[in-house]
This record gives sequence, structure tokens and C-alpha cells, in this order.
Amino acid sequence: MEQITWIAVDWGTSNLRAWAMGPRGPLAEATSDDGMGKLSPDQFEPALLHLIAPWLTTAKMPVIACGMVGARQGWREAAYRAVPCTPVAADAVLNVMTNDARMTVKIAPGLSQSRPADVMRGEETQIAGALALNPGFDGVLCLPGTHSKWVQVSAGEVVSFQTFMTGELFALLSTQSVLRHGMADGWDESAFDEGLSDALSRPDRIASKLFALRAEGLLHGLSPAQARARLSGLLIGIELAGAKPYWLGQNVKLICNATLAASYTRALATQGVTAQSLDATACTLAGLSALQHEIGQIP
Amino acid sequence: MEQITWIAVDWGTSNLRAWAMGPRGPLAEATSDDGMGKLSPDQFEPALLHLIAPWLTTAKMPVIACGMVGARQGWREAAYRAVPCTPVAADAVLNVMTNDARMTVKIAPGLSQSRPADVMRGEETQIAGALALNPGFDGVLCLPGTHSKWVQVSAGEVVSFQTFMTGELFALLSTQSVLRHGMADGWDESAFDEGLSDALSRPDRIASKLFALRAEGLLHGLSPAQARARLSGLLIGIELAGAKPYWLGQNVKLICNATLAASYTRALATQGVTAQSLDATACTLAGLSALQHEIGQIP
Repeated sequence: MEQITWIAVDWGTSNLRAWAMGPRGPLAEATSDDGMGKLSPDQFEPALLHLIAPWLTTAKMPVIACGMVGARQGWREAAYRAVPCTPVAADAVLNVMTNDARMTVKIAPGLSQSRPADVMRGEETQIAGALALNPGFDGVLCLPGTHSKWVQVSAGEVVSFQTFMTGELFALLSTQSVLRHGMADGWDESAFDEGLSDALSRPDRIASKLFALRAEGLLHGLSPAQARARLSGLLIGIELAGAKPYWLGQNVKLICNATLAASYTRALATQGVTAQSLDATACTLAGLSALQHEIGQIP
Repeated sequence: MEQITWIAVDWGTSNLRAWAMGPRGPLAEATSDDGMGKLSPDQFEPALLHLIAPWLTTAKMPVIACGMVGARQGWREAAYRAVPCTPVAADAVLNVMTNDARMTVKIAPGLSQSRPADVMRGEETQIAGALALNPGFDGVLCLPGTHSKWVQVSAGEVVSFQTFMTGELFALLSTQSVLRHGMADGWDESAFDEGLSDALSRPDRIASKLFALRAEGLLHGLSPAQARARLSGLLIGIELAGAKPYWLGQNVKLICNATLAASYTRALATQGVTAQSLDATACTLAGLSALQHEIGQIP
């Protein structure tokens, strides 16, 4: 086995993922559900060691982490960097003191935008990865998810971005609201398209179109799978309506998993936009690698 | 004490309210949290008796109930009546068999609209009450709440209606979403107005404006009370945006509690609409009384 030279960590609200990295990429991966959301500050180091201890030696192992681990409720707060700026910067990482002398931990800070007020943590590293994988890219990145981000990138910098609560609204409405009674796993492409079209053409009616999912189920037999797909279409539609200045006539790349990539590609295609997609995990690793490389350049 | 001649019941998802009624109005009131949401079909009669047994005699006491008690998941399903129609009708009430011979129970059905698909249960009785209290009223009724209703009334009939998930979205977002970290009780009138104006002028940006509440708290010190009021403004704003065909240039009456009446009156006033408000409980009682009177007319 190749030698482990550093450790990459993606530490979100719900999950912790770590990769043992060699000179040519990842050698091993470990994950746990020790997300930021359930840890107090003194629980982060034990949670990390629980995953990566097998990879540590007596030498000081560099560990670079991104995500909600650097939030105010995280391990230690890594102050936001204000856009416009490069997505990551070696001189802005936060050094975290550890009790275990076998590692040095650095946290990549998120980005903020003053007006309109907006923030991201974790996505900046995926953006850095997308730029590392597509040198010279200028255009728009879309990072669908719990809090979807639309990002304008130019000359290697994040120029502006905008967040939409799409994924969180979908989770709340499909599992916690009255709509849950008429929702089930499954999918229906034409129901998705209808929801998308409804929201894009009449975004002002969104709160009414949501309740109509319930009424359509009661009165016209809208199936649980159709209701779920139409809800997804409505919420991605209202996101695309608000993000129109980002995608209209633009070169768009998606950063997400395959399921979301399929939905967003289909949705953007109805608006005449051909989007390419990049794998989110590959972007995270490429971004952390770029940051680690940049840190190594500092004398 | 005057003689109890019948019993009025408002049975919603979360609560059960009953009134002992005499010839001149309510003589006593009793409430419990035995809402439809937590009862199986065989638990409704005991839950009702638990409240009203002290009011029963050996004679058969008429009990008239409205609300979710008549839903598919309720005591027994009272099939929707399709609009256009009067809000209530004596010949459409559902007679429920009871084990206890001291009462006869009737449930008022809700209303449905085929296109756009929509349903209501309980509000139809409040509408009947509003018409009883305001004979000859023609115009628009707004019933703010968990599922806000806008209703066009003409010549004593419900012509059309539209439901918005406003109250449920407020509850989910303020207590279950990432926004809960920056929310607390309290109020701020100008934050409400800002949210209202944002949503009315740019309804397409609603999913982004929601996340901005979080970012404004982190970056610009938006207080928890301001965040809560602005969330309310955003959600009432997106409702008013979608309901514009209902209120524009119309004679509007609100049916709700005093807190919601203040918010909706203020919101409608910014759009040049002067709304009068009617108390929701008074309307429920007036509606059930009108229905009981009509039932009494049947030979």
C-alpha cells in the first residue's frame, strides 16, 4: 500500500467522511454519522480519531476538513471569507489545537456575501474542486441539495451566489406536513414536469399549488408517487424561477449526486439550458487536494 | 339555567370544542385536545361523551359537529359537497350511529372544488356563520390559518375557493428547519412589512428569501424576533401574491383570531384593501346554529 501523506475530511451536519490520501489520490475511506449537528465542541476530536486512528503514525499527519465543522456550533468557528474571492485559500484555513500529537487539523472556512446576505460552508471546497477539474472554467455552478447554491464563477473567483431552501422544503413537506399522507417513494416523470412548469409559469401560486397536491390526491386519485414527483417539480421550479438570472443563457455545471443531476438536468433542459454534471464527492476531494497542495507551497 | 336544546361541536385535527346550546345561544363550553389526528374511529364517541355527558338527559340530544371529524381518517367520512353550492345544507349532513342512546350525532360535510382541485372541512361552517351574521353579503372571505382559504361568495353560495399552506409552512419553517436557530417569540412590525413587500414584489424568489433569514442573522445580526416577523411577512406575502385575483378591488372579510386579523389587515392595507374581521369562533357557532335551525325545519 502507498504511504498515507494526508487525510481529507468532509464534515457536514449529519455525516463525517474521511479519506486517507496518498500522492496519487485516495487510498482508503471511512464514514460515520458523527455529524456536526450532534456533537459538542469537545466531542469532535474523539469522533475524528474514532475514524482515522488506524491511519495515524508517530509523525504529524496533516488533516484538512471542510463543511459545517467550522460553523459557530461546530468544532471551532472558521470565520467566513467574503466574496468576491477564490473559493479556498491556504492562508485562510483555521488551525485547530488537538490533544493528540499525531495530527495537525486545519478547517477550510466558508464564504459569505453581504448583499443579498448569504453564506455557504463546504460548497466552497466543491467549487474549488470543480475549478481544479475544469481549469479556466468561467460560468455558473449549481450545487443542488438541502440548501441549493447557484454560483457565478469568473477568473477563478466566486463572484456572487444565491441559496435556495429546496431540499429542506422537500424533506419537511414530504415527511412532516399534511402532504405526507399522500406521499410515497416512487417517481413519475410527467408529474415532475407538470410541477416544474406550474412553478416556473406561476411562482406566485406556489403555496396554493402545494396544498393542491393533497386535494388532487383526495379528489382525483393523484398517486403517492405522482404527488412526490410533482412536489419535487414544484420546488425545483420555484428555485429555477428565482435563479433565472444565474442560468439564463449561461454555461451551467451541476455538482451533486446522480439522482439530483438527473432531475436538474431535465428541468434545465425544459428551459433550453444544457447542463453538464460533476460528481459531488469527486469535487470535494479535488477541492481539498487543491487546498492541501496550496498549503504545501507556503514556505 | 336555561334548558340545553342541542350541542354544537367543532372537531378539528388537534382540538375538540363543544358548546351546550339553549334557545338564545351558548350556555356552557367544554374543550379537550382529543383532536381527530390522534383518534381511531371507535375512540370518537368516548372522547365526545367525556366532554358532553354532563349535558345529556334521557331525551335524545341533537349534536351537530363540523371539521375534520368528517374526514376519511375521522369518525365517519362525510363526502364533500361540490361547489358552487351553499356552504351548509340540512339534507347533506351525515347521521352517525352511536352506542349511547341519549344523543343523535350529525356531521356537516366539507366542500370540494374539482378544478383547480381544492377541499375544505370546517371552514364551510364558518362561511355559513359569516353569511348568517351578515345577511346578503356578496364578496370575498379570507380564513387565515394552517391552510388559509380565500372564498368567493355570491347569492348565498360558495362560488370558488383557493387554499394556501401558509400557517403550516410557518410552523414547519420556524420550528423544524435550519431557520429555527434564529427564531424566537416576539414581533417586529417593520420586519413583517419588509418580508411582505419582498414576497409580493418578487414571489419567484421566495425559496431564496427564506434562506436569507438565516444568513441575515449570521452576518447582519437580524434578531430572532425580527426573523420570525419577516418569515410571517414572507409567507403572508406569497399567499397574497397568489390570491390577488380574490382580493384585488374586492370587499374582503377576514374570519380568524385577533392576532391573525391584525397581520392580514395590515398586509391587505398595504395593497389598498380595507378588510373587516369576524371572530372565527363566533362564525363557527353561527354556522352550526344556522344548520341546526335548517335541520329543525325539515318535516
